Amino acid sequence: MSNTEALPLIESESDAVVPCCPPLTERPFSAEEAETAARMFKALGDPVRLRLFTAVASHEGGEACVCDISDVGVSQPTVSHHLKKLREAGLLTSERRGTWVYYRVEPSVLAAMGKLLTIAPVAA
Amino acid sequence: MSNTEALPLIESESDAVVPCCPPLTERPFSAEEAETAARMFKALGDPVRLRLFTAVASHEGGEACVCDISDVGVSQPTVSHHLKKLREAGLLTSERRGTWVYYRVEPSVLAAMGKLLTIAPVAA
Repeated sequence: MSNTEALPLIESESDAVVPCCPPLTERPFSAEEAETAARMFKALGDPVRLRLFTAVASHEGGEACVCDISDVGVSQPTVSHHLKKLREAGLLTSERRGTWVYYRVEPSVLAAMGKLLTIAPVAA
Repeated sequence: MSNTEALPLIESESDAVVPCCPPLTERPFSAEEAETAARMFKALGDPVRLRLFTAVASHEGGEACVCDISDVGVSQPTVSHHLKKLREAGLLTSERRGTWVYYRVEPSVLAAMGKLLTIAPVAA
């Protein structure tokens, strides 16, 4: 098996998580809101995923090839597994161009997470 | 055993997580930064914990008694377990006053998470 074939060959974009929720400090979340938001937080709740995510997010042009970001001290299958989890959570999208798969951060999801962490005034 | 004794009777504040990291989009995280930030995200990566956290964060005065926030459809021991996890992650602090334990959101951690999700300009 060639190196290329070992990559996660996913050509279509994932179904992005729809921004769901008010700031964490605004009101208690409903069960449904909590499910959606927890999915995003959980995806970033692993050190290897977080290193991969920041590597993609900070890469030139906002996207990165797997070949650019695999230097996180785990095996290539593990890298592929974590990239898949980030895609499933809607945090990354992927596109195959020629030999390589390129990953890009989904800006709408980052914006939604930023909104979650907006600090609302504390109720008096 | 009385109802009160079943509560998590923790009187001292937890060791808050020290804000650690630049925005997610600024540069790849080191292993150490990823460990710290992933701990915070993981703590919020569970729907029940997220409902408890938002219930505390949005409660009058920014703090809540366990008696105020237990209505999340799980047993009291499960509520206690998740509140402990949130404390261990440094997201909540707790204080016993009289009969009840009061929980409060750790503002410095929220601010640190807000910083993580600041969207830095994408490198050209």
